[in-house]
Amino acid sequence: MTTIEPGAAGGSAGRRRGGGLDLHLALGGGGSRQGRSLEAALRDAVRSGRLPVGARLPGTRSLAADLGLSRGTVVHAYAQLVAEGWLVGTQGSGTRVAETLQPPADETGRGQRPERPRPPALDLRPGRPDLSSFPRGLWAAAVRRAFTSVPYDDLGQPDPGGLPGLRAAVADYVARTRGVRADPGAVVITAGFGGGLALLARALHGQGVRAVATENPGLARHRELLHAAGLETRSLPVTPSGADPGALAEAGALTGPVGAALLTPAHQHPRGVVLAPGHRAAFVAWARRNDAYLVEDDYDGEFRYDREAVGALQALAPDHVVYAGTVSKALVPGLRLGWLVLPAALRRPLLRAAEESGTAVGVTEQLAVADLLRRGDYDRQVRRMRLLYRRRRAELAEALPTRLDGVPAGLHALLPVGSVRQERELIARGREAGLLLHGLHSNGYWAAPADGQPAALVLGFATPPAHAWRPALDALTGVLDWSGAATPR
Amino acid sequence: MTTIEPGAAGGSAGRRRGGGLDLHLALGGGGSRQGRSLEAALRDAVRSGRLPVGARLPGTRSLAADLGLSRGTVVHAYAQLVAEGWLVGTQGSGTRVAETLQPPADETGRGQRPERPRPPALDLRPGRPDLSSFPRGLWAAAVRRAFTSVPYDDLGQPDPGGLPGLRAAVADYVARTRGVRADPGAVVITAGFGGGLALLARALHGQGVRAVATENPGLARHRELLHAAGLETRSLPVTPSGADPGALAEAGALTGPVGAALLTPAHQHPRGVVLAPGHRAAFVAWARRNDAYLVEDDYDGEFRYDREAVGALQALAPDHVVYAGTVSKALVPGLRLGWLVLPAALRRPLLRAAEESGTAVGVTEQLAVADLLRRGDYDRQVRRMRLLYRRRRAELAEALPTRLDGVPAGLHALLPVGSVRQERELIARGREAGLLLHGLHSNGYWAAPADGQPAALVLGFATPPAHAWRPALDALTGVLDWSGAATPR
Repeated sequence: MTTIEPGAAGGSAGRRRGGGLDLHLALGGGGSRQGRSLEAALRDAVRSGRLPVGARLPGTRSLAADLGLSRGTVVHAYAQLVAEGWLVGTQGSGTRVAETLQPPADETGRGQRPERPRPPALDLRPGRPDLSSFPRGLWAAAVRRAFTSVPYDDLGQPDPGGLPGLRAAVADYVARTRGVRADPGAVVITAGFGGGLALLARALHGQGVRAVATENPGLARHRELLHAAGLETRSLPVTPSGADPGALAEAGALTGPVGAALLTPAHQHPRGVVLAPGHRAAFVAWARRNDAYLVEDDYDGEFRYDREAVGALQALAPDHVVYAGTVSKALVPGLRLGWLVLPAALRRPLLRAAEESGTAVGVTEQLAVADLLRRGDYDRQVRRMRLLYRRRRAELAEALPTRLDGVPAGLHALLPVGSVRQERELIARGREAGLLLHGLHSNGYWAAPADGQPAALVLGFATPPAHAWRPALDALTGVLDWSGAATPR
Repeated sequence: MTTIEPGAAGGSAGRRRGGGLDLHLALGGGGSRQGRSLEAALRDAVRSGRLPVGARLPGTRSLAADLGLSRGTVVHAYAQLVAEGWLVGTQGSGTRVAETLQPPADETGRGQRPERPRPPALDLRPGRPDLSSFPRGLWAAAVRRAFTSVPYDDLGQPDPGGLPGLRAAVADYVARTRGVRADPGAVVITAGFGGGLALLARALHGQGVRAVATENPGLARHRELLHAAGLETRSLPVTPSGADPGALAEAGALTGPVGAALLTPAHQHPRGVVLAPGHRAAFVAWARRNDAYLVEDDYDGEFRYDREAVGALQALAPDHVVYAGTVSKALVPGLRLGWLVLPAALRRPLLRAAEESGTAVGVTEQLAVADLLRRGDYDRQVRRMRLLYRRRRAELAEALPTRLDGVPAGLHALLPVGSVRQERELIARGREAGLLLHGLHSNGYWAAPADGQPAALVLGFATPPAHAWRPALDALTGVLDWSGAATPR
């Protein structure tokens, strides 16, 4: 470990062009690792405040001269940190430390401007993985490998079900890791879970289904996708043992038959509980008795931290369960790649829905994911993210005054609070502190408000990028300290 | 893989305590994988019926002894399978196979194997570029560059309209090369033209449109996409001056108002003619008068070989024309990336349709295309393909005994033949010679058969990969020589 002080090291260029900035960068290793080491040193400098918000960095040429690195190494390191959000590069005015603690952007009235408002720096809302951990190099390498060997015929209009090679790799993966009973012909590649659910809704509607039971609380976005396909939704109350199958009979009796139930068995979203064995069996029995379908949204099934994950419900009744998975959590949602494993009777209707909606996932994503799956790189990535998120969940639990609700799994956890009013107060207080929070009552989770619904913060501990995790945690504990009453023991 | 038969392996405890049950469990791997392997073996045993419904399993202690595993491993495996619903544990009476499980599902009738049939070697059907000319290295480099610098925020769930950077690059490109009047906010990125048309159909339907005029002959696939969104289609006859705007009044009068017309102004598909200036003006006047929309499918607008391409119709009436472009021709259809440039009134309905159908194009394709557009690499690629296709069209014209119909443009050309019967004979003869051909009457181009429809082969000279172009041309001339009568002078 060498400590290099550009100002003191003879070259004053760094100081001059860097606007008087003194960089004390500790670079470890040597050779090809210097670039990475420089990145780490710069991150440290930002994190510690030695490089304050808005500060202008030295020019690449002068910093390279000061540190005895090639200019390309410095350029690459800056680009990497810009990509990760530590720095911003502005044409003409050089590279600066990103303004990480801006007041939250007003999200109303976005209108149709293509520029998105910069998200506030601190965000603990659920539903997003740590985007800064996306393995960019691994992904680019997979794309290159895939395009080196793919037969040109695979570059034409893709089959609406997906490329055969990816379907086979997915069938193998879900069987191996989640116990799903799948052959490649049962797998359909979709534009993430959202795209898959929209197709499924269309296919179910075409099969005569008119109503789908959904978990309450559950994701409003999923209910909306079902409604957009002409389906009604009915609420399944979520108990500590997961969605309540007993409610199905009632719902059916009241308003006509329910043709499917959308479930999150491994880790209920948002309540974080696991569907109990008895409930699993009851749902399966219901589906068999009524010739209905269960849709198993296994959105974070690979992420269980205390024990082996509960295997897929699908394996109990492959003819009645549609299994749905996605790369959104182990990689990033932007890839828009997910999969459905379908009962035989739904395969043709679903492919038809895909043709009718003109959707298909691009071959670049398909080929690269197939490559990662086949090489075992995808499994390694899952393990890497599992370690990261397990650590974050543990740090979250340690930092909080009360116990988290739900099993240690997935990318979010629940912090119970005393009342809906307290939940709202905490969210408002967070916003003032530049921290975005969701609660059980703030995101359309409940199909309708009712008495007796529990209150809690739904904490997406995966959401912050690496550099913002600690600040987010500090901001959260600050908010909770402020309202000590809101955190019952 | 070791086959372990508990009964035969010395310990009879398994048999005794298991109620006479002989477990033939094949355990793979070793060490810490044994637990998982045991679970898999038990699942298999249940699935295959070797462990029948209701059967009692051996005690954990005896099974552990029989299999040479630790008792904890067996306890864990049982617990796992209870959690997954395969087994039920009852206090006092041990562990049994769950009653809810039915005998193994019949997995026949899977049909739908994911392998596609190998295409024949020679193919002159239209609608596909030369896939073998895809610049794989350029593409992989663009992906790498894009992922080196993209801010991590762009890796989340993409905006349904597309990434801001790509929308800006497309707006610039279509303005520069096709004269389209576009700002980035008017651009929406879609899953190719098919995905765009499906969204547009949904948006138009939501605006009260019930019928769309389509060119006759035209692509059956486009009519189907419109029908799938609940729209009717009306035929616009295609004259040597392109689609006939005069037919709109008639169509409207007969069956209610037509809210939009889908056109291929630069190069009619399939007839290869250009929409004449007078027809362009008449369509625009019609749209203005009826507050209707024109959809300009500019599928191959960059490919004109004898003169500068006719600029986009959109520029005449940006408030009434939806302009549609795609990378399918200059790159490959498998990327599934296209764009719409929308009148202001259609932007919100279209983005809503995109949200409702859960579609979004993956960021890998979006970032890479944006990179190619910004660097000018995309323009160079268009020029490269234009040279290639111009040469092919010239070679085709030279090899044929009669003149090609339509302007020298795009990726296909028409070879007129004397009758529908001759067209069919040539296609059949081609098939025998291993050459796939389409004619005006063989691909659903006509909405309905009628007297006086011209006959022709629709030759996709771009379709063959580089190595198959000459053989395809030779096969075609062979087929034409055979039936000299089919090629009038």
